[in-house]
Amino acid sequence: MSQLVNREIRLRSRPEGMPSAENFELVEGPVPEAGAGEILVRNLWMSVDPYMRGRMVQRRSYVQAFEVGKVLEGGSIGVVVDSKNERFAVGDHVLGMHGWRDYWTSDGRGIGKVNPKLAPVQAYLGVLGMPGLTAYAGLLKVGDLKDGENVFVSGAAGAVGSLVCQIAKIKGCRVMGSAGSDDKLNWLREEAGVDYAFNYKNAKEISAQMGKGLPEGIDVYFENVGGPQLEAALLHMRDFGRVVVCGLISQYNDARPEPGPSTLGMVIMRRLRIQGFIVTDHADLRERFLSDMAGWIAAGKIHWKETVFEGLERAPEAFIGLFRGDNLGKMLVRIAEK
Amino acid sequence: MSQLVNREIRLRSRPEGMPSAENFELVEGPVPEAGAGEILVRNLWMSVDPYMRGRMVQRRSYVQAFEVGKVLEGGSIGVVVDSKNERFAVGDHVLGMHGWRDYWTSDGRGIGKVNPKLAPVQAYLGVLGMPGLTAYAGLLKVGDLKDGENVFVSGAAGAVGSLVCQIAKIKGCRVMGSAGSDDKLNWLREEAGVDYAFNYKNAKEISAQMGKGLPEGIDVYFENVGGPQLEAALLHMRDFGRVVVCGLISQYNDARPEPGPSTLGMVIMRRLRIQGFIVTDHADLRERFLSDMAGWIAAGKIHWKETVFEGLERAPEAFIGLFRGDNLGKMLVRIAEK
Repeated sequence: MSQLVNREIRLRSRPEGMPSAENFELVEGPVPEAGAGEILVRNLWMSVDPYMRGRMVQRRSYVQAFEVGKVLEGGSIGVVVDSKNERFAVGDHVLGMHGWRDYWTSDGRGIGKVNPKLAPVQAYLGVLGMPGLTAYAGLLKVGDLKDGENVFVSGAAGAVGSLVCQIAKIKGCRVMGSAGSDDKLNWLREEAGVDYAFNYKNAKEISAQMGKGLPEGIDVYFENVGGPQLEAALLHMRDFGRVVVCGLISQYNDARPEPGPSTLGMVIMRRLRIQGFIVTDHADLRERFLSDMAGWIAAGKIHWKETVFEGLERAPEAFIGLFRGDNLGKMLVRIAEK
Repeated sequence: MSQLVNREIRLRSRPEGMPSAENFELVEGPVPEAGAGEILVRNLWMSVDPYMRGRMVQRRSYVQAFEVGKVLEGGSIGVVVDSKNERFAVGDHVLGMHGWRDYWTSDGRGIGKVNPKLAPVQAYLGVLGMPGLTAYAGLLKVGDLKDGENVFVSGAAGAVGSLVCQIAKIKGCRVMGSAGSDDKLNWLREEAGVDYAFNYKNAKEISAQMGKGLPEGIDVYFENVGGPQLEAALLHMRDFGRVVVCGLISQYNDARPEPGPSTLGMVIMRRLRIQGFIVTDHADLRERFLSDMAGWIAAGKIHWKETVFEGLERAPEAFIGLFRGDNLGKMLVRIAEK
């Protein structure tokens, strides 16, 4: 251990609108010690995710709000550097909710070991982790996807969206995705294998693009974004279509909530179901997800990208970048090499 | 038959915004004759329903648009005055989709006989008819109501809403309803037996009223109206709540569609399901509905009101009145006494 200090990033103030560097502060302190029955872990990777924006404000939500002046939380992968817990050995790689810091201790509850031989460890924060299960549960269970249906995915080049697109292709679907840059559109077409991809930033074109990409309409809309894409997509839904609401990232930084879609009447005309979900409600699918996903990866059917910021101190920058669409695939922060 | 002429009401022009008398015309013609295998029916009652507004515009919808210059259609109850069809005898009461006129002929397909001894015949246009099945299927099947849940009904004093309230009470639920006049609120409290009723016209009070009426939140919101009530109700939904979208009458006359609810983010936070439906998709429930409803009526558990306009010529007025909330219970037009 070359580092004698533990750095952690705290919420300095609650963001209003788009978060900025001023909302965060990096604080140094002593490295904690593993007590009886505990492990000490050095973080290698941490995840930044859009849902964290919701935890930065004080409101009734499905997860507790972050506290001002306290260290932030989120998924991280680390290596055990000291163990007084018989379940863990020094050198084990573990997954927990202890991001935004260099070191952490735990009694092991809620901490899972990950296998670095199966995939690079950071994949357990992405394709084999929470975003992977989100895509899997949202599309197959909440969306009740049937083989061969027509699927539209917004935020299609993101951590979740990129997996939704590929799972839908595995299920024989025609898949349309939207993203915000040529790089992302190229990746969607060439790597993820979507049938049609378009840039949502040309707002006037959105509905026309949807009509071109899925001229027979949309059976399942996997929604990561909201706003004009939701408004337009409702007009393109087929009878008994499903809108799976995973995220509404376009709205997370609105100081005042934006109006919803003016096209909600389609819900009756087309007998649509709009359903929100949270991945933690679907933990029962984890085993099946891991088995399916490992198989698909081994068969070369799933590709993924990572956008990596180097250094814990850049975590706020990585987080803020999520809302500018800076990431292709999973947005990660590398905290330490090993 | 004292009348030698058949009157019918045609769509003269497509309404823009609120319909007016000018959109309709009453035309006289000869009474049709029953051909081989046909019946001739004299209408006694006809129904006016909010969904007809959608058929007056030319757009992709779940039912075909009415044609300008042609007679309108809708549910009606009549008496057979001539029969060349062995299934029907003169004097039988029948239900069909041949409203907006005095007389009609049919080969009998899609025409059902109704029993005037079970209930006044016009009840087959209301509590025992399409509005009844709409309430039953929407609340119990689409809404997946569980005994004892908290239910909110907008348009609670209307043909459908008033039945939803009472079915929910039968199922042991706590029921809150909204309506637009003191008469309606009194009826809801005293006859329909709802636990809490409020006037939605005081828009600033809507959310506070919801909090008073169902302080623990809403499990099922049966939506007939839309607009500010939907926006507010989403903030009061409980985890895994369901919004059953039966109608959005507040929007049917908008020349430009109004924005949707700014509170749609609650769909994720509370894992809500917003689901639209159309009664004709649930014809498989008709037998069970009729059996349950007849039992509830016999047990005195279902009360209903009718708002009656006298004379075919007043049908446009009755229809327009739906959008002003002129009706308590089912809006009907009496075309003939017998």
